Amino acid sequence: MKIRMGMVGGGEGAFIGAVHRMAAALDGEIELVCGAFSSNAERARRSGSALHLAADRVYTDYKSMMKAEAALPATQRMQFVAIVTPNHLHFPVAEAALRGGFHVMSDKPATFNLDQALKLRAIVSETGLRYGLSHAYTGYPLVKEARLRVAAGDLGAIRKVVVEYPQGWLADRQEDADNKQAAWRLDPTQAGISSCMGDIGVHAANLAEYISGHYISAICADLSALVEGRNLDDDGSILLKFENGAKGVLMASQVSVGEENALKIRVYGEKGGLEWSQQEPNTLWLKWPDRPTEMLRTGADYLSSLAAVNTRTPSGHPEGYLEAFANIYMAFIGQIRAAENGTALDERSADCPSIKEAVRGMSFIENAVAASASNMKWHKLPNY
Amino acid sequence: MKIRMGMVGGGEGAFIGAVHRMAAALDGEIELVCGAFSSNAERARRSGSALHLAADRVYTDYKSMMKAEAALPATQRMQFVAIVTPNHLHFPVAEAALRGGFHVMSDKPATFNLDQALKLRAIVSETGLRYGLSHAYTGYPLVKEARLRVAAGDLGAIRKVVVEYPQGWLADRQEDADNKQAAWRLDPTQAGISSCMGDIGVHAANLAEYISGHYISAICADLSALVEGRNLDDDGSILLKFENGAKGVLMASQVSVGEENALKIRVYGEKGGLEWSQQEPNTLWLKWPDRPTEMLRTGADYLSSLAAVNTRTPSGHPEGYLEAFANIYMAFIGQIRAAENGTALDERSADCPSIKEAVRGMSFIENAVAASASNMKWHKLPNY
Amino acid sequence: MKIRMGMVGGGEGAFIGAVHRMAAALDGEIELVCGAFSSNAERARRSGSALHLAADRVYTDYKSMMKAEAALPATQRMQFVAIVTPNHLHFPVAEAALRGGFHVMSDKPATFNLDQALKLRAIVSETGLRYGLSHAYTGYPLVKEARLRVAAGDLGAIRKVVVEYPQGWLADRQEDADNKQAAWRLDPTQAGISSCMGDIGVHAANLAEYISGHYISAICADLSALVEGRNLDDDGSILLKFENGAKGVLMASQVSVGEENALKIRVYGEKGGLEWSQQEPNTLWLKWPDRPTEMLRTGADYLSSLAAVNTRTPSGHPEGYLEAFANIYMAFIGQIRAAENGTALDERSADCPSIKEAVRGMSFIENAVAASASNMKWHKLPNY
Amino acid sequence: MKIRMGMVGGGEGAFIGAVHRMAAALDGEIELVCGAFSSNAERARRSGSALHLAADRVYTDYKSMMKAEAALPATQRMQFVAIVTPNHLHFPVAEAALRGGFHVMSDKPATFNLDQALKLRAIVSETGLRYGLSHAYTGYPLVKEARLRVAAGDLGAIRKVVVEYPQGWLADRQEDADNKQAAWRLDPTQAGISSCMGDIGVHAANLAEYISGHYISAICADLSALVEGRNLDDDGSILLKFENGAKGVLMASQVSVGEENALKIRVYGEKGGLEWSQQEPNTLWLKWPDRPTEMLRTGADYLSSLAAVNTRTPSGHPEGYLEAFANIYMAFIGQIRAAENGTALDERSADCPSIKEAVRGMSFIENAVAASASNMKWHKLPNY
Repeated sequence: MKIRMGMVGGGEGAFIGAVHRMAAALDGEIELVCGAFSSNAERARRSGSALHLAADRVYTDYKSMMKAEAALPATQRMQFVAIVTPNHLHFPVAEAALRGGFHVMSDKPATFNLDQALKLRAIVSETGLRYGLSHAYTGYPLVKEARLRVAAGDLGAIRKVVVEYPQGWLADRQEDADNKQAAWRLDPTQAGISSCMGDIGVHAANLAEYISGHYISAICADLSALVEGRNLDDDGSILLKFENGAKGVLMASQVSVGEENALKIRVYGEKGGLEWSQQEPNTLWLKWPDRPTEMLRTGADYLSSLAAVNTRTPSGHPEGYLEAFANIYMAFIGQIRAAENGTALDERSADCPSIKEAVRGMSFIENAVAASASNMKWHKLPNY
Repeated sequence: MKIRMGMVGGGEGAFIGAVHRMAAALDGEIELVCGAFSSNAERARRSGSALHLAADRVYTDYKSMMKAEAALPATQRMQFVAIVTPNHLHFPVAEAALRGGFHVMSDKPATFNLDQALKLRAIVSETGLRYGLSHAYTGYPLVKEARLRVAAGDLGAIRKVVVEYPQGWLADRQEDADNKQAAWRLDPTQAGISSCMGDIGVHAANLAEYISGHYISAICADLSALVEGRNLDDDGSILLKFENGAKGVLMASQVSVGEENALKIRVYGEKGGLEWSQQEPNTLWLKWPDRPTEMLRTGADYLSSLAAVNTRTPSGHPEGYLEAFANIYMAFIGQIRAAENGTALDERSADCPSIKEAVRGMSFIENAVAASASNMKWHKLPNY
Repeated sequence: MKIRMGMVGGGEGAFIGAVHRMAAALDGEIELVCGAFSSNAERARRSGSALHLAADRVYTDYKSMMKAEAALPATQRMQFVAIVTPNHLHFPVAEAALRGGFHVMSDKPATFNLDQALKLRAIVSETGLRYGLSHAYTGYPLVKEARLRVAAGDLGAIRKVVVEYPQGWLADRQEDADNKQAAWRLDPTQAGISSCMGDIGVHAANLAEYISGHYISAICADLSALVEGRNLDDDGSILLKFENGAKGVLMASQVSVGEENALKIRVYGEKGGLEWSQQEPNTLWLKWPDRPTEMLRTGADYLSSLAAVNTRTPSGHPEGYLEAFANIYMAFIGQIRAAENGTALDERSADCPSIKEAVRGMSFIENAVAASASNMKWHKLPNY
Repeated sequence: MKIRMGMVGGGEGAFIGAVHRMAAALDGEIELVCGAFSSNAERARRSGSALHLAADRVYTDYKSMMKAEAALPATQRMQFVAIVTPNHLHFPVAEAALRGGFHVMSDKPATFNLDQALKLRAIVSETGLRYGLSHAYTGYPLVKEARLRVAAGDLGAIRKVVVEYPQGWLADRQEDADNKQAAWRLDPTQAGISSCMGDIGVHAANLAEYISGHYISAICADLSALVEGRNLDDDGSILLKFENGAKGVLMASQVSVGEENALKIRVYGEKGGLEWSQQEPNTLWLKWPDRPTEMLRTGADYLSSLAAVNTRTPSGHPEGYLEAFANIYMAFIGQIRAAENGTALDERSADCPSIKEAVRGMSFIENAVAASASNMKWHKLPNY
């Protein structure tokens, strides 16, 4: 049986909701069965109809959805909820879903603030249900390969991590134009205390920790609103210390005009280095002191089984963002199936961003803002 | 309502069947409802089960499938058949489907030989049903953009086309190892008269004609079996003349060791040039005599509406092979819906490889083999 | 007449001395006429002989050289001295040369410390002679183009500068092996108070100021010795503030294993961005919010006259490090000729790193070390 | 002592003459001592003066130069002549130089036609003097590395060679504008029977034979004048057979608008492949069936001694066209020194394009034109 998904948010015109739906649909293992796409009834109806949903499975608020779905027979009702609303709704929806007995796949950042994230952690623990977070960039096969290579010691002890995430879409005042994304991302009541760090800096931090295998332990942050008149940061640069003594830099920007979504990471150890760029995700560079740089490619036979199971086509057939995103979904439903069957997690399912990453991400955002406000150089991060 | 798809071929372990299914599933507009995945009953059952199909919609031969599906209520039975078998079965399955009243989406090359393709053209014409062909590389948004830019005259009259498709997977005798793909691709009874031109050269020729907007009118071909002992070509280079007087080169190879799937095209006109590579499909280069080369990117606002409607995410989120493939499916079901609704084709639906490309492709393959066997330099292509 | 050059340092086996000689020789406008290559007489003799110098123009110490050359007829004696010794000798040699009436082209960093640089500034001013500094990366034609484009306002007001200079050659303890370069670079008595910032960070800072047209006004630095047991930094990351309010990041590293000499800069303004990488120096990227990224190429007709005059071959013939270095020399001897002829500087000659860059560079190095030692986040730079 | 060079051709405004002079000057081992830059006395004088030559070493015709130089003392007179005239003068000047007792370094193509090349071969043989040819692209360190890797069998038996050389500078009728290069390149009385193959196709053929270690034995050629009204080819595509049975393609074009000087070669063997591009000459790609593609870089320690001796700076300092060209000169004067000293050639000096390449090049050009005119597919090349 396919796994049955409900969705909150993601009505007509929304970006990330459509991404979640395509990622969930790709492998033919998940079926969208219901949704609360909008509080506007007509808009909700249109969205549901466009998605070929039965009219009685389209809701106008998430609370009704939880209730109605819970009342359906076990073989029909949704098994998990995908949350794709603006940030300030992530927590209440997640809480309602978990309390209603549904697993949760949430868009990031996990909550509106750290306090909510900690509460959510308690609820997840209490309910024993699955919680997944769409740090989609860790879904790329070569990101997984990078992590495994570092973990295997191929690079030696890690000394330096440089992670950057420049975008240019907020280089002018899109929030004054008719750009809804821009409007809510820069609105503290919807986005939280950070725009740039909250939206993309948190991805960069997550990627750095995922690949390096080390947690960031202290930061020195300089967040800026480089476009005049903004209440939230649209750019930030952060010096990093890792728990193992490694140093690093994290840069994120929404005003690097002309940049698309140029997430990139470089990790250097005693024995080797690596480099990966999201816009050319099917190439991973391994660098050595005494022999040629190697270009690893998605789908190649020499990659790990974890990379292979997260790849759908032979090498040379580019896999992209939606496939990476789908890998997060596949890991997540692997957890649901394992939970239902009482079986152990396989390699793929075990590798999914969880409530731990949710809490660490919210901690990173809040501490980046606090560190930036300080005159002191270094600001310690709590060890969640 | 979603469009209902049946599939012939593509059981356990098959490559291209899974690609068709993912491409069809991605946008949530197509539902796989039945399949004849294998003539082996147990294998067919396992495949159907893995695909979450109802047991009574899993068949062991395509003829039974056509018959049984035709007997179902109109709102339940499949609407089209995806054909993903080895080449020699493409024609009989397509014929049976069309005769049974079902539209057909076929993997390429369309048939086993040109004669079958011409027959198929007659059947398509006779039945008035939709026929689509998975020349998936024309599904990439920037390939469409390239075509439109040439058509708009941005490059001036076209003078030169260089298209190449090097692969390396047959650089050693995979057909002696346990590689089923290699075995049938190099077996004349399953693949037809050509391996390299039949599998990938035909893609290159199709891409050259699609982007340049001109048909190839004469060729000078040198096909080789560069690995000893093969009965079919594993490499070929072809000089091209186009109907408008342009010259060109087409290179295809399965023995270019270390190459993945490096389809690439360059087109030069009087006023400008362009370059596109399948392995980095989200970049299109436009070259000018007197100003900087431009790098166009998938998802950017300056692209055409046709490119935009074939793109799912903002620029910087790599879209790949499966998305391109899905674009072919979306165009195809747009044709089905238009046919059912009696409406005109929209821009997206009108842009789908059809029976014309099927015939031209088979003609290209047969003529490439004939031209290669000739001592004369130039060999004319019929104008299908 | 060719301009006559003497050299101090750069004997057998030295790296940078040979670079200066090739750069000076390339355009056929400079003749090496004498040198003090080594204090070891035999080594000096061998070096002079290998360089085809007359035996009586080879000296074993720079003081004798200044004296002996000054005693030669004006049409024979050297006109300027190239200083290519380790850092601690830069100042005394430069002082002796200037006092002896010779112009000076010095390798960077200009002196051992800031105090010497300020003294040198006074001597240059006093003698009225020409002083050039080999910040060779500003010699690349496309670096000059970048500077001009920014100055012309093409990018709008500058908001963000990211400059990085990763190397990997000191990733292991080369100073314990037989690597002379490594030994003196990491020895405080020869290199000064910094290895990484003194050798390459200063290049990065110079490049950032040269292209952006703005001086760095405050820094937040974290310098590290990432390889155990070192007395000087081998890695450093610095947050930047520019005098116009722009923000930035400067990264330099000698332990980024597998990196060669990967100096790269990105500059973002209100209206556009640019990117240039030293390892592919013949490409300059211009990035725009609403139209395709442009790839500018060395030698193209659309470039400025300053870029053109600093280019030797048509586009597509790669020019490299030695040509960039030679451009510094050509600008410098243009100054000498203008001084001798009493003419104004032309565009090319006016564009040469000078004593101002020498002082700013030494100030950057000293302040980076001081800033790194501080617990406070921001450290102001004096405005030399 | 430096080696003394004279030059014929290369007066004011000439391109390739300046290239030869810079290449010769770079390493400080060659001194330009005389020249016949122009038959116009004033123009010759100005050229000589700009090059800082003594007035009595500037000649207005090459015959006078040969005579006058021969009359000078052995330690003063030129030792070799660099010939940088248009093609039709290569042979008479070379003949006069050799007959006058001077070694010759000639720009390519070696002569106006094959007949002259064969005569020249006889003269070279007769005089026992050194003859070098500026196939400069074989001067790049990584081209040499590529040759050695193939020769060592790293790629196994060679099966396929693809070499291409697209340029765009003749995409419009430059010959009607004030472009002297264009005018003589397209004039059969100055350029010979081919423009595109004579200027750049011959480089591509030379590179293919140099790296693969195999001679081209048969060709199938299609040369075109794609811009109307031209008497000589401006584009050509050629299918290749090599003496060892390998196949290949050679493409050259002067009308591929927007291309600069994009010489590129790919070689595939049984065990591996390689790729090198002239516009990024410091990278050599090695491709393998079962492990990651390797990126080799100029200056790296893992390269051969032949590559190392032809490299001037550490890896990461781009070396370009002039350095490659200088390597040809360094090999050539190594031959002169060895001849004078009666010593054997060292590795570097032995590796220089010679009269053999001169004859093969002229044969390639003439046979390409003949093959293109034929209706038969294959045309054999004589084995010079």
